[in-house]
Amino acid sequence: MWADLGPIGRDAGSGGYRRFAWTEADRDCRAWFRSEAEARGLTYELDRNGNQWAWLGDPRAGDAIVTGSHLDSVPDGGAFDGPLGVVSAFAALDELRHRGVEFTKPLAITNFGDEEGARFGLACVGSRLMAGQLTREQAYELRDGDGVSLPDAMERAGHDPSALGRDDERLARIGAYVELHVEQGRALDLSGDRVGIASAIWPHGRWRFDFRGEANHAGTTRLVDRRDPMLPYAETVLAARREAELAGAVATFGKIAVEPNGVNAIPSLVRGWLDSRAPSPDDLDATVTAIEKAAREYADRHGVDLAVVRESFTPVIEFEHALRDELGRLLGSGGTPVPVLGTGAGHDAGILSSEIPTAMLFVRNPTGISHSPAEYAAEDDCVAGVLALADVLEGLACR
Amino acid sequence: MWADLGPIGRDAGSGGYRRFAWTEADRDCRAWFRSEAEARGLTYELDRNGNQWAWLGDPRAGDAIVTGSHLDSVPDGGAFDGPLGVVSAFAALDELRHRGVEFTKPLAITNFGDEEGARFGLACVGSRLMAGQLTREQAYELRDGDGVSLPDAMERAGHDPSALGRDDERLARIGAYVELHVEQGRALDLSGDRVGIASAIWPHGRWRFDFRGEANHAGTTRLVDRRDPMLPYAETVLAARREAELAGAVATFGKIAVEPNGVNAIPSLVRGWLDSRAPSPDDLDATVTAIEKAAREYADRHGVDLAVVRESFTPVIEFEHALRDELGRLLGSGGTPVPVLGTGAGHDAGILSSEIPTAMLFVRNPTGISHSPAEYAAEDDCVAGVLALADVLEGLACR
Repeated sequence: MWADLGPIGRDAGSGGYRRFAWTEADRDCRAWFRSEAEARGLTYELDRNGNQWAWLGDPRAGDAIVTGSHLDSVPDGGAFDGPLGVVSAFAALDELRHRGVEFTKPLAITNFGDEEGARFGLACVGSRLMAGQLTREQAYELRDGDGVSLPDAMERAGHDPSALGRDDERLARIGAYVELHVEQGRALDLSGDRVGIASAIWPHGRWRFDFRGEANHAGTTRLVDRRDPMLPYAETVLAARREAELAGAVATFGKIAVEPNGVNAIPSLVRGWLDSRAPSPDDLDATVTAIEKAAREYADRHGVDLAVVRESFTPVIEFEHALRDELGRLLGSGGTPVPVLGTGAGHDAGILSSEIPTAMLFVRNPTGISHSPAEYAAEDDCVAGVLALADVLEGLACR
Repeated sequence: MWADLGPIGRDAGSGGYRRFAWTEADRDCRAWFRSEAEARGLTYELDRNGNQWAWLGDPRAGDAIVTGSHLDSVPDGGAFDGPLGVVSAFAALDELRHRGVEFTKPLAITNFGDEEGARFGLACVGSRLMAGQLTREQAYELRDGDGVSLPDAMERAGHDPSALGRDDERLARIGAYVELHVEQGRALDLSGDRVGIASAIWPHGRWRFDFRGEANHAGTTRLVDRRDPMLPYAETVLAARREAELAGAVATFGKIAVEPNGVNAIPSLVRGWLDSRAPSPDDLDATVTAIEKAAREYADRHGVDLAVVRESFTPVIEFEHALRDELGRLLGSGGTPVPVLGTGAGHDAGILSSEIPTAMLFVRNPTGISHSPAEYAAEDDCVAGVLALADVLEGLACR
């Protein structure tokens, strides 16, 4: 499977993937999913929100066990974030057929659309639409960097956007959703385990810091006459790191936009985006409040205006305890308990947890690197992930 | 004159000017220049490097006194940087005719092409070509942001580029070049003078700082596992300000490029451009050396690689002392000495100073702002500038 999927949307220069929603690379990934489904005799479906489904058994029987992930990527992303969950789902089904198990419930494999949000700026669009956390009206307002709206992009890719929105009928079919994912940190590597179970997704927010100063000539304007917004921006970047260390949180300025962005021009505007996550809502609030307070002091000192806008916020998400404990029993039957760990990353399983029982399995990532071509999981660990997922699906769908 | 020139190339949104070389706005500015020349009975010429000339007297007589500036602009530039020198040149000629003076030497008014370099990335293209500091071959390599080459742009605008290059015959005609310019700092405002004389153009360089770290997920990567290049970049921005203050120099990070520039991604690359200028070469060298040393320490501490590339360097330019002193005598005859000041900005008068005697007059700018729609000079000060330029031209061309 990897051999067919590997070349799609890969940039020859960076070696990273550029599989953005409703592009040609996305279309090729979707064609791959459909052919894998049909090769296994599964019933293929594309739902009205653009998510793909491959069914074993009657989709309408109810109490289905669903597994899968997503195939899209961040800019210059790695090979595993998303695809490992989809490939492992097909491989786990192959393993269960090899074991000769009998399914007592329908099983489905999914590819959720636009999980990374790389093109339209909002993550988990497919699962949000299905769960009603993103309305049709809101989805119609989304635009990519070229000004193309989400519905226009869907139409150009041959998908009718008119029926976007909450999908009660589909949610009612599902008994549980289990998503396997490469770990995006080093907890399993540090503990020496191949596979882990997710406990919770940290609360997470994104804030836009607009530092507005005064454009001026970089060669002739005296330092004391400047209102240079790059200076308080730089001080705020450093404050974010300090405050995150203090709170046991993470805080990152990874995206910036500068105007006019000329070598010989003091900027009029430096716009920086803060991404911050913490184990608890209180930790996150304390971290961001301290960063914003520091930023305001720096801005004042340089005669620069500051506006801070919270662009998104996701509260802490606890995966359903009963399902999580069930996974622990199924995987710990050999006597070795499977570690349970939190994560700072958002996932479709987190979005859907408000509607249906969801759980996640993580596969060891020796470097902890993700969202980069250096993202990696060893073949042995990927196989262990497939077998763990097969054990879980057998325990859930064959009882 | 301002009424006709004012609307050309003005962006309705920003209020700033976008008069880039060999565009429609540039063509309209050039048509304005020609009509002003012809309305005064001057002999109009377009030289082979795209510079415009308006002659009073015989161009080939030699020892001509030349004045003028440029009509192009930076992106969203102000109304005065460049045009004030051209408008004041025509107005000073009107004043001298009003005075009824007798010219003993030829007088020319110029509009040098592509002074700001906003389109092709190199400043003072017209004067560099004329002085042989830019060869025809080098000029043919210049490209704008859309990949259009300079010769193609010239041809599309109806100018034959085949004879670009050093213009010895034209340089030999000129006895002195005096350029009037709006001040791009607040020295005259602080000293309370309307007009000043340039002493020198500070040495000036641009350096590119490439901080290379490791792209990773902003939510899941532990702080201790990060190699985040935004952190040493931020520390270097602050070091640049500190070192410039210590040395009496200026240092600016006004342009940045980040990869992958995603809200939830630790960057793999932060590329920042440093523009620095100082009163002396030693001051500039000390400033940039200290900034680079600090940047290397910061980068090491964060496990980030740093490469520093000097992209351009212009040594100090002293305007000819005899001509400068002559201007001081001509303008200080009323008993009040005219201030002499250095500048951090490049000009055609600086380029030509290697070939012919050149000098500059500055007109007070109450805010010091330039390269911005807020660039400003009061009407009284502009009139004072015209009268000062007329005094200088009378002294130089009517002896």
